[in-house]
Amino acid sequence: MLPPDLLDALVAIVGEPNVRIDEASLVTYGTDALKRGHPAEAVVLPADTSQVAKVVAQCAEHRVPFVPRGAGTGYTGGAVPLHGGVVISLERMNRILEIDEANLLAVVEPNVITGDLQTAVEAVGLFYPPDPASLHMSTIGGNVAECAGGPRAFKYGTTKQYVLGLEAVLPTGEVIETGGKVVKNVVGYDLTHLLVGSEGTLAVITKIILRLVPKPPVQATLRASFKSVEDAVAAVSEVIRRRVVPATLELIDGESLEAVAKNLGVRSLAPPGTAAILLLDVDGSAQAVAEDADRVEAACVAVGAIEVLRAKHEAERAELWRVRRELSLSLKMVTPLKFNHDVVVPKGRIPELFALVSRIRDAYRLRIPLFGHAGDGNIHVNIMVMPDDAEEIERAHEAEKVLFEGVVALEGSISGEHGIGFSKAPFLPIELSPDEISLMKRVKLAFDPHNLLNPGKMFPE
Amino acid sequence: MLPPDLLDALVAIVGEPNVRIDEASLVTYGTDALKRGHPAEAVVLPADTSQVAKVVAQCAEHRVPFVPRGAGTGYTGGAVPLHGGVVISLERMNRILEIDEANLLAVVEPNVITGDLQTAVEAVGLFYPPDPASLHMSTIGGNVAECAGGPRAFKYGTTKQYVLGLEAVLPTGEVIETGGKVVKNVVGYDLTHLLVGSEGTLAVITKIILRLVPKPPVQATLRASFKSVEDAVAAVSEVIRRRVVPATLELIDGESLEAVAKNLGVRSLAPPGTAAILLLDVDGSAQAVAEDADRVEAACVAVGAIEVLRAKHEAERAELWRVRRELSLSLKMVTPLKFNHDVVVPKGRIPELFALVSRIRDAYRLRIPLFGHAGDGNIHVNIMVMPDDAEEIERAHEAEKVLFEGVVALEGSISGEHGIGFSKAPFLPIELSPDEISLMKRVKLAFDPHNLLNPGKMFPE
Repeated sequence: MLPPDLLDALVAIVGEPNVRIDEASLVTYGTDALKRGHPAEAVVLPADTSQVAKVVAQCAEHRVPFVPRGAGTGYTGGAVPLHGGVVISLERMNRILEIDEANLLAVVEPNVITGDLQTAVEAVGLFYPPDPASLHMSTIGGNVAECAGGPRAFKYGTTKQYVLGLEAVLPTGEVIETGGKVVKNVVGYDLTHLLVGSEGTLAVITKIILRLVPKPPVQATLRASFKSVEDAVAAVSEVIRRRVVPATLELIDGESLEAVAKNLGVRSLAPPGTAAILLLDVDGSAQAVAEDADRVEAACVAVGAIEVLRAKHEAERAELWRVRRELSLSLKMVTPLKFNHDVVVPKGRIPELFALVSRIRDAYRLRIPLFGHAGDGNIHVNIMVMPDDAEEIERAHEAEKVLFEGVVALEGSISGEHGIGFSKAPFLPIELSPDEISLMKRVKLAFDPHNLLNPGKMFPE
Repeated sequence: MLPPDLLDALVAIVGEPNVRIDEASLVTYGTDALKRGHPAEAVVLPADTSQVAKVVAQCAEHRVPFVPRGAGTGYTGGAVPLHGGVVISLERMNRILEIDEANLLAVVEPNVITGDLQTAVEAVGLFYPPDPASLHMSTIGGNVAECAGGPRAFKYGTTKQYVLGLEAVLPTGEVIETGGKVVKNVVGYDLTHLLVGSEGTLAVITKIILRLVPKPPVQATLRASFKSVEDAVAAVSEVIRRRVVPATLELIDGESLEAVAKNLGVRSLAPPGTAAILLLDVDGSAQAVAEDADRVEAACVAVGAIEVLRAKHEAERAELWRVRRELSLSLKMVTPLKFNHDVVVPKGRIPELFALVSRIRDAYRLRIPLFGHAGDGNIHVNIMVMPDDAEEIERAHEAEKVLFEGVVALEGSISGEHGIGFSKAPFLPIELSPDEISLMKRVKLAFDPHNLLNPGKMFPE
């Protein structure tokens, strides 16, 4: 229960309709896509940076925890008020402030939907590449807080490559600006890129300056089927060896394909004997795309692809991508609950990762379909469980730990896109040393001396 | 004078020949390219990370300041032991440990010369794009500490875009690893990119994992002459509007051209009436390069270029770039001393920057040739002075301050490449607010509780 004078102060700052304490709101804003959370004690909807700063200052003064929230599409509980307190929902701060074609940048408020920004900049021939699967729901602010990736990261990099500057409210209430409208700036420490991916634990991001690039005029999509995951990974290496940089390089394994086929009610989505497919996009000028597509096809054939399809027009491109788009939903039809882990290994070690998951499947008797961004070595490992099977869930949790330890042993990372939040916090010491964690906690204290901003996240409690 | 037991301890760690206390060494390692410094009290040359950690621990125990040093090519005094103490020269840690073609990465020790790494990776068809002017002398470690840029940053980004992971020694002696061999990693705070550009004030970098890209097979170079800087900048905008992304987009003004012509003993390097030239490289596949070069030429002609030259072969490319390469030396022939400021503005505001410099030239009666990376808005403002003219130097220092204030008013930054070091530290408050500086100092303390690592840098004392 919040102190009444804090509630009064919040109402005075944002107005009565923008402070919510009804049960439904407290519960709704208490969870995200992870579907495990803790109810908020109040939800506040500030209209601008100045209101955010005042809300934060009030919470700090009362030593009440507060958590910034975008669209709540995160998979690790990053936006959840784990220790109660105030959820600062940025949903009213959702304007595209500027699209600057001369300087190839955009200035946005945090709650602009990523897909909306993409549509807006593509209308003037520009391109904002990061494409998390959630892009039609998730917000730029959330993408920045988590450093969202997506299929196009192989060629274009993740969100961090596009953030030039930020405006943010410190947990003590001061408003700072980091970076700016210039692509080069080495004045002081790079706080911009410290805030990107800090999961809302260091500051509340209130404005974002994004770098844009020219929109590639032409895309082509290819789909190649392979009789083994090893062949598919060999094709990835062969494509890279032939110096093509596809915009996307998605890998889908046989178990995932089966789930999609079942969901779509078709017998099969690929030729008989297919154990893995690759979906590849190449983009650029018409001539370069044609050359690259030829080289991709030749590379796939050279390593023994069963079949290579090339889309002849936009409708065929959409058709080839359909399997990938249907994946998440199809897997939910297999079992309603999945633990989706976005582990990442150096791409040359993907076959070792698949071998590791094979051993885990057998040892823990679990269904674990795999798909993901093969170009980055970023593979989504989906541990499928029935929500009412406590024993299976127990095995799944044991399997997770073995997976994470194995990934780190392969010079990989336990999260390439989703972050740590609170769900992965217990596993942080698998990847980071005590000295590294202790340094990060000191950095956190430098920003947030009373540990009020989004407590319980990232670090094991 | 260092405590004798510290000296003994240093000798015990690295061996007698690798601790230098002779006068010549103390003076040599006490300056860098800025040519203002402070003598070291000892110079230590560790062989590996473990020795660096022990040296740091000893200095920390004795509360003696220590400063890491690469090649000493910095322009802002970053490697200078301003408060005395121990210079840790990383010159013996100069091996390329790994070039991993499958995963497109290299692992290097800090003192690998940037140009040597480029040669090594290009031999296997790969590419490390950052190209600071000092690349044949400066080291990757120094480039990372300063976040070095260079002409190719317009298309390829600066050093930070290529650093995947670091090994570093904290000022308290612990060895940490940040990031790793994967291109995506969102586990914990992004300390990698906090260390990049931190100017050796947060940790001593001992190993670097760098991302590589495929080497573009073909380059083309064009040179366009314009009757005004405004026309040259209009050409830059027109090139971008036509959605070409040149690898480099260098702008050189008339005063700089004159200096080079004089130095080379020729009457002129460009057609009569030239006030500015642009040097443009485009790279990629043969077909894409041919198309892009046509579009660049058309863009320059469209805004009224006096002349556009296109190199027909490698020798002509070198000839077109000769002016740019001769620039620094030629300006030194004009006056032996120049204050070289790497200011940066959003590129659409370059004409306003040139107008600002014009006003400064008149008001302070100074020669200020301009050249730089027009695509990034990163312009080198060279304030030319005679070293024995105290009154002129005084005017130059007044002009600097006006320049920096003007640049920040243009939404720019006082340094795009060279960093702050100690020479620009007094100007930090022009760009950063007291809250921002105070936060950065708290971050510094989180790493370096006794302010022993490279003290006197970045922040005004």
